[in-house]
Amino acid sequence: MTQLSLGLVGLGRMGGNMARRLSRGSVRVVGFDATPGSAAALAKEGAIAAADSLAALVASLPAPRVVWLMVPAGDATQATIDALATHLSRGDTIVDGGNSNYKDSQQRAETLAARGIAFVDCGVSGGVWGLENGYTLMYGGTPDAARAVEPFARILAPAADKGWLHCGPAGSGHFVKMIHNGIEYGMMQAYAEGFALLDGKREFGIDTAAVAETWRHGSVVRSWLLDLTAGFLASDGSLDGVAPHVADSGEGRWTVAEAIEQGVPAPVLALALMSRFDSQGKGDYANRMLAMMRQAFGGHAVHGAGPGKHG
Amino acid sequence: MTQLSLGLVGLGRMGGNMARRLSRGSVRVVGFDATPGSAAALAKEGAIAAADSLAALVASLPAPRVVWLMVPAGDATQATIDALATHLSRGDTIVDGGNSNYKDSQQRAETLAARGIAFVDCGVSGGVWGLENGYTLMYGGTPDAARAVEPFARILAPAADKGWLHCGPAGSGHFVKMIHNGIEYGMMQAYAEGFALLDGKREFGIDTAAVAETWRHGSVVRSWLLDLTAGFLASDGSLDGVAPHVADSGEGRWTVAEAIEQGVPAPVLALALMSRFDSQGKGDYANRMLAMMRQAFGGHAVHGAGPGKHG
Repeated sequence: MTQLSLGLVGLGRMGGNMARRLSRGSVRVVGFDATPGSAAALAKEGAIAAADSLAALVASLPAPRVVWLMVPAGDATQATIDALATHLSRGDTIVDGGNSNYKDSQQRAETLAARGIAFVDCGVSGGVWGLENGYTLMYGGTPDAARAVEPFARILAPAADKGWLHCGPAGSGHFVKMIHNGIEYGMMQAYAEGFALLDGKREFGIDTAAVAETWRHGSVVRSWLLDLTAGFLASDGSLDGVAPHVADSGEGRWTVAEAIEQGVPAPVLALALMSRFDSQGKGDYANRMLAMMRQAFGGHAVHGAGPGKHG
Repeated sequence: MTQLSLGLVGLGRMGGNMARRLSRGSVRVVGFDATPGSAAALAKEGAIAAADSLAALVASLPAPRVVWLMVPAGDATQATIDALATHLSRGDTIVDGGNSNYKDSQQRAETLAARGIAFVDCGVSGGVWGLENGYTLMYGGTPDAARAVEPFARILAPAADKGWLHCGPAGSGHFVKMIHNGIEYGMMQAYAEGFALLDGKREFGIDTAAVAETWRHGSVVRSWLLDLTAGFLASDGSLDGVAPHVADSGEGRWTVAEAIEQGVPAPVLALALMSRFDSQGKGDYANRMLAMMRQAFGGHAVHGAGPGKHG
């Protein structure tokens, strides 16, 4: 059996660990990263053969090639695909493992197909734990393209027959990953609100870390997110040192936009997203206006700005 | 070592399986149920010694007694406690394992303490799976009362040292269980909304059962609720045969009332509850009014009543 070869572009936190897991699975990984030094470090530990350009990466892979991208969604992904396509040949496959918008992926598949290059959009979940636990992979593309990706999916996933899925045509992989992340927003918010009420009930003196740990065993709300929550609460249950600011990235917004497009209600996913905007201080204007309205009709006091909730 | 003895009142789905798990753990369980036949059936399989009245149950337990209630919250629980208290002696302990309101539990602990009877409010999670997997137990009461309950908790829980917690004073056990169920509402709603969007994207032909199964392995949203979801989707992914009606019980409402009392936001938990009300047709009046308003200002058509969404 010939050794599997894969080109991997983007060797950051996710890409680097995926390279390690693939090389442990006996895949020959040829890696490139725009940041100098990333590839050299991974090459030194034996996880990859370093390439110093996309052209060199493509040249060192046997045809038909599979090149897997782990670069930030948006402009970086588009630029990498454009550059790669000039070096690849008919029959090669590009896999976008980033969190791209599924509509962009549909468009890219179409553009590349016209040049005879296959495209697979692959949602990857598992975060920094994927190296040990494996990654969940959900991908879209033609049956042929999916077949080219499958041998790598079987190594990256938690088990050869578990945790990977060819979801459907191009775009469906990133669509499923988008919904995955939308659900994640809602679940996180549900836990966070519940624990806030446990913490808020001061007269009971509840040890929130102990509650999280207890719920991990046999309860209806046990989950991997709860495992992680129990872990960090055990270090510092008060969370006093953590700024109450929650970032959001594309998928949460796209999930809510999808609900609007389908005309299907997703109120909790939408509100979980809005709560993140609020945490970013984006609700301050509305709250100032509410304070002013209360003053206007009821003469209620308005506090000066100063370093406020989000100050 | 003397054999542990426990009185168990209420031998329904939960109580019956708890009796089985306790007897497997070598506890002598004396059981009573107001429904004739329940106790006899369990006695026949060897899980309990059947008592035909509360008085007989109390009489057959060595002092100090522990009597565990698994009866519906509300009037049934209050009536059982009132009746039990007339038979029990100073130093005995009543455990309420139902889903009582934590404020009722605080009140009951106080009333019983005046008669020298200890009271423990114990939230029990695990549903019909508890017999095999064990139950998560979260209980409130004095340190002495908690000590009386601990030997049974170690058997009912998934492991002797895992899945049970003395949360704090009386009331805190049912409080923690209430929040657990509030979180459950939010998590369930998050999954349901996400899967609805997967199902709604018809052009991708996504196999929602396969997605749920895939997400179980390595993804950020893996959980026990997802395990169950993958199970029933595998039987029928369309859900066409299921009425879109979701019941709610006390805890979801109490969690939201608690958020209002504390003045701490729990918008997603509140909205998950409101979504259940909507599924019960309780949003119909407001929707009729909206349809009429649209007609009033824009002349838009209003559909006749007939067998509608919830008909």
